[in-house]
Formats: sequence, C-alpha cells, structure tokens
Amino acid sequence: MKTERIERVLSRLKGMGLEQMLITDPRSIYYLTDVYVAPFERFFAFYINANGKHVMFLNKLFAIPDGVEVEKVWLSDTDSVTDALLKVIDKDKKLGVDKDIKARFLLPLMENNAAAGFTNSSYAVDITRGVKDEKEQELMRISSDINDKAMAKFKGLIHEGVTEKQVADQMHQIYLDLGADDYSFTPIVSFGANAADPHHEPDDTVLKEGDCVLFDVGGIKDGYCSDMTRTFYYKSVSDHCREVYNLVRSANEAAEALIKPGVALADLDAAARNLITKHGYGPNFNHRLGHFIGLDEHEFGDVSSSNDWKAEPGMIFSIEPGVYIEGDTGVRVEDLVLVTEDGVEVLNHYSHELEIIE
Amino acid sequence: MKTERIERVLSRLKGMGLEQMLITDPRSIYYLTDVYVAPFERFFAFYINANGKHVMFLNKLFAIPDGVEVEKVWLSDTDSVTDALLKVIDKDKKLGVDKDIKARFLLPLMENNAAAGFTNSSYAVDITRGVKDEKEQELMRISSDINDKAMAKFKGLIHEGVTEKQVADQMHQIYLDLGADDYSFTPIVSFGANAADPHHEPDDTVLKEGDCVLFDVGGIKDGYCSDMTRTFYYKSVSDHCREVYNLVRSANEAAEALIKPGVALADLDAAARNLITKHGYGPNFNHRLGHFIGLDEHEFGDVSSSNDWKAEPGMIFSIEPGVYIEGDTGVRVEDLVLVTEDGVEVLNHYSHELEIIE
Repeated sequence: MKTERIERVLSRLKGMGLEQMLITDPRSIYYLTDVYVAPFERFFAFYINANGKHVMFLNKLFAIPDGVEVEKVWLSDTDSVTDALLKVIDKDKKLGVDKDIKARFLLPLMENNAAAGFTNSSYAVDITRGVKDEKEQELMRISSDINDKAMAKFKGLIHEGVTEKQVADQMHQIYLDLGADDYSFTPIVSFGANAADPHHEPDDTVLKEGDCVLFDVGGIKDGYCSDMTRTFYYKSVSDHCREVYNLVRSANEAAEALIKPGVALADLDAAARNLITKHGYGPNFNHRLGHFIGLDEHEFGDVSSSNDWKAEPGMIFSIEPGVYIEGDTGVRVEDLVLVTEDGVEVLNHYSHELEIIE
Repeated sequence: MKTERIERVLSRLKGMGLEQMLITDPRSIYYLTDVYVAPFERFFAFYINANGKHVMFLNKLFAIPDGVEVEKVWLSDTDSVTDALLKVIDKDKKLGVDKDIKARFLLPLMENNAAAGFTNSSYAVDITRGVKDEKEQELMRISSDINDKAMAKFKGLIHEGVTEKQVADQMHQIYLDLGADDYSFTPIVSFGANAADPHHEPDDTVLKEGDCVLFDVGGIKDGYCSDMTRTFYYKSVSDHCREVYNLVRSANEAAEALIKPGVALADLDAAARNLITKHGYGPNFNHRLGHFIGLDEHEFGDVSSSNDWKAEPGMIFSIEPGVYIEGDTGVRVEDLVLVTEDGVEVLNHYSHELEIIE
C-alpha cells in the first residue's frame, strides 16, 4: 500500500467535497496499492474513504501477493458485483468514480441508489499520478534511455527493399535484448506518404529512395513507459522534406525551451503551433502537442490549447509536434520531458539532427 | 457497413423497448461497420437509431478508409464530446449504451439529460456477436489451426535449464512465422507449482524434472483470436500429477461431448465441475468453464453456472476446466468449440493425450 499517495488523493477529494471514491483503472490501483491485476472483463476496484476504511474488490481468480494490508472482498465468477459494492459504499454520501468505470458496473449502482450522487472525480487520482516522485522519475529516465538505444538499432534495420512490417517484426526482440519488458505500444513504422497518417500501422509498403522513415516507438521497463518519435530519410532528402523536417524540429525545440514550473501547458502547444502555422502548415498539425505518460503510455493530461494546467516539478509529458501532408510525407519529432525545479530535463537524448540513412 | 448485422442489433433493441443506442467498444464498432480504430483515450462511438439515422463519432486524428457510407462527426482534441452527442441523441427517448462506455463520457450525458433515460443494452450487440456467421467460423478455424501448429512448436522450446521467460520470449516470432498477426493475449507459461495460479506470468523459474509445463496461448489472424491450453510434463510425471491430468482431461471431454443446440451452457459447466468435485478437487476448479471468443479474446458470455443461455449454432466458446493445487501443480485443458446444427466442432486438434517432454 502506498499510504502517502492515497492520502494525497483523499486530500484532493476533500477539496471536491467528496469523502469516498471507487477507482477501477488497474494502473491507478497499482499506483495506490502496489497490487497489479489485469482484470479483463472481471471486476477489480479499490474503494477509498476519508474515514480510512479502504476496500479492494477482487475476483477469486486474481493472484495477488501475500501481505497486502487492506480489507479485501473476494468475488467468484457467479457473485453479484453490485451486491458486494452496496455493502461497502456509504449510501448517504456522494460517490466519486474514476473516468474509466464502465457502464456495466456504474449503471447498476445508480439504479440501486448506492450513493447520494455520482460524480467523475478522476482528476483527484489522475493529477496525483501526473506529478512523478523521485523514484518514478528515475524509472522514467531508465526507460527512455532504453528507447534512445532502441532507436539507434531500429535505424540499422533500414535497407533496400525492406517493408514496414519486416522492420516492425524485429523490434520487439530488440526491446527485450535491451532490457525492456515489452512494448509500451505497438510501434509505428511509416515510409514516405504513409507518414502522413500519424497513427499508421506498419504494412507491406516497400522502402524507396527519398522516403522519410518515421519511427514512433516505446518500451516498458519496470512498469514505466517510454515514447519517442524520430523521422529519418532514406538515401536522399528533397528540399521540401528538409524544410518540413526543420520546421517540426524547431517547433519541438521552441516548446521544450519554454518549459519550467508555472508555464501553462497550453502555451507550450501554442509556441509549437504558432511556428508551424506561420510557415503555412497549421492545418497539417492536426493533434495536440503532447500527453502525460508514466505507468500508462497515455495518461490523463493533455499538452493542448484546452488544458489550463500549469507545469509543476515532477510532471512528465511528451512534446511531439508533427506536420502531415496527405499523399506526400509526414514528420514528427517527439521527446519525453520532465519538469524540474527550475526548468526542464529532456529524457530522450537521441539527436534531433536530420539524418539520412544510406 | 454491415447493414444486416446492424438490423439484427436494432431488432433486439426493439425487443428491449429501445430505438437508439450508443456503442463504444471498438471491436463492436468494427463488427458493425468494418471500421477499426484504436481510440486510446479519445472518443470513438457508433450511434444507431431505428429510424436509420446512424452516426459515427471520430477524432480528426483517426484514419479510416474512404467510402464508409455513414454520417460522421469529426471531433478535434479540443472539441466537447458531450456537445457533439447532444446534437445527435434523441432526448425524448431512452438511450441504450454498451457495457463498455466509460464514466467520463456517460456521466456528462446523464447530467445534461441527453436522453429520457439510460440503460445498459449491451446484450443486443453482444449476443449478435456471440453467434458467428459462416465467414467468421472459417476465420476462427484458420486461427485455431495456427494455434495447434504453434503449440507443437512451443513444446520444442522446452529443454534442461530453460526459464519460463526464455520460452515466452520466443513465442511471438513463432506466431508471426506461422502467419498470425499478433498474440491474442500475453501467453501464459507455467512450470510446476507456478501452474497453480491460472493467470501466472512467465518469470525466471527454471524448469526441473517432473514439472508440469502449462501453455495457455493464442494468436490473432485476420482479426480473429485463438486460445488453447495444454499441460505437458518434463521428463517424468508422478502418479499424483497423472491422476489430476486425467481428471481434467475427462472433465474437458465430458463437457465437449454434451454440446449441441439447446443445451444450457450452465449444464456444460456442471458436467465438468461435478466430475472434478466427485474426485475431491471441486474447490481447486476456481473459475468458470469457458468464455466466448472471436474478435476479442474474451467476448461477452460465460460458460458458467450463472449463465442461462442455451447453445445455438454458430456460438464459439472455450471449454477449459482446470485443477489448481497451491504449492504443488496445476492442470488446464482448453479447446475452442463451435456449436453446429447437430452437435459440436472442436476447433483445436492438438491431442489431449498426456505427453512427457524428454
């Protein structure tokens, strides 16, 4: 149990006028309790109450370590989840739920008046997770260091006649060899015009001279995710591609240079976006600048115009401007960054220089 | 668009007194529209209405094929999902939602009275998915055929001094080599007493003589998942292990022999469970007998005492009895089965015979 983290969540809940919350995101439960379960369709939840009566709901099939010091309710595949929750939730008080609880569990609670009201209080957990402690910062450094090394090896997979899929199929083993435990997400490998789709899936496209080669990749090490994008060119680069590349690189560096405690995350997005817009590619940067990351590859919290958060020491998020030109090319340059007491530590050290793979 | 499948869902909704439904499970949307998107934290939904006005909600970042003939609402990262839904949902009628919609999207709809009521109508979609059409049945046969071949290769990875993790790390490539696109789930490889945890994750345990070797594995081919478990023994098998193995095998075969249209799924569970209980291992079979499977590795629908469904031709589910003895051993024998017009087709052909790996 991570008592101190639970206290931070309860304190934020208090600020929202809440005394009880039901948490169902398995990574959030892990963050608060050190217990990790992949529940699939079964019910797994952690109930916390300001009075100190916290309860973990488990299926008898889940294996958890001995000695977890919390009250547990063990359900079998044929028990009623709703009945079990009704016995624990204080029905005279409002219940906070996390953003992830599914209708199949939430609606029956509402229909049975399990609480005096229901509200999404996910922020209390999510912002707590968003500010990494020193141990977490160190694990994120290690994970990103593996990703830097992986990127260098991925570049070596590029050769005449290779397809995106052939490259992608070799990447998992490279992460394992470098000490990662798994991918943090299925890698994106895009050649040429395929890079115009920011979420392109590797296919049978064959590499050809002049193509850009975009890798958006990450691994997991000791539970913490890395995530980085680099865009290379094969054998040659056109003036047009070079111009787009340098613009995106500058947008990345302009945003990173601004990072320090107190800066609005929306202002980071604006710095990158304004630069790209000024050069006529505004509509081609069709996503937010970044996202939080840690135990999950995408954690709650955007670096976008719609997020009014200010940077705080310990926050870790991505900075990933891109320009996507349909039928032509795409570029993204992405690092993970850690907000420090007086500025920023960029967790990725792989160069931003335009590289041509021979 | 799969118009005929959508009509089947609408017809079931009508039987529930519903004219509109919001579907958010990406695989269900794929099943109904041929459009697959992995939305991560972004909003992706398919709204269907008995009046024929179906609407797909997408993020501008999602790439979907051209020519999808349905009304689309494209959202950017900074648009309000709730506002977009309020413009489409008929607020004077009840809204069905699927079991998977998350609180972050559902609660704002309820708070804004987006509909005359909200109910979990997932069954309408889920039971439609549960009965596979001929095309799907063929894809499930192909996927399970790959899994049979994979199992034979996995057995070949077992040798003196190997660890579970070393074995598991070689399995992804084997699936790819056999033509699968990916795992359908992270494989379970358990040696000896580790097999007593049905969901054990491969670790650094070293194989030793007399250990059971349990593989619970599956791949994905053309979107359809396989899932099979076999339990082998290394070099020798004790009388005790042989007894448990034969009991579990008999439980599997007793259940499979009963399958035909009209049989209650609960009765299949009972057949396997009663046999195991009669031999004194009832408490050691601590999970349901099986689950539905198809586009997802675990689809809605249990083969358990709490499910009153009757088998229908086209249903595909797992039959996977197990006996787990803490600190000692574990056995599971799992096949996928297809209910046919007059009986059952077992989709896995890998032998049930007790095998000793030399």
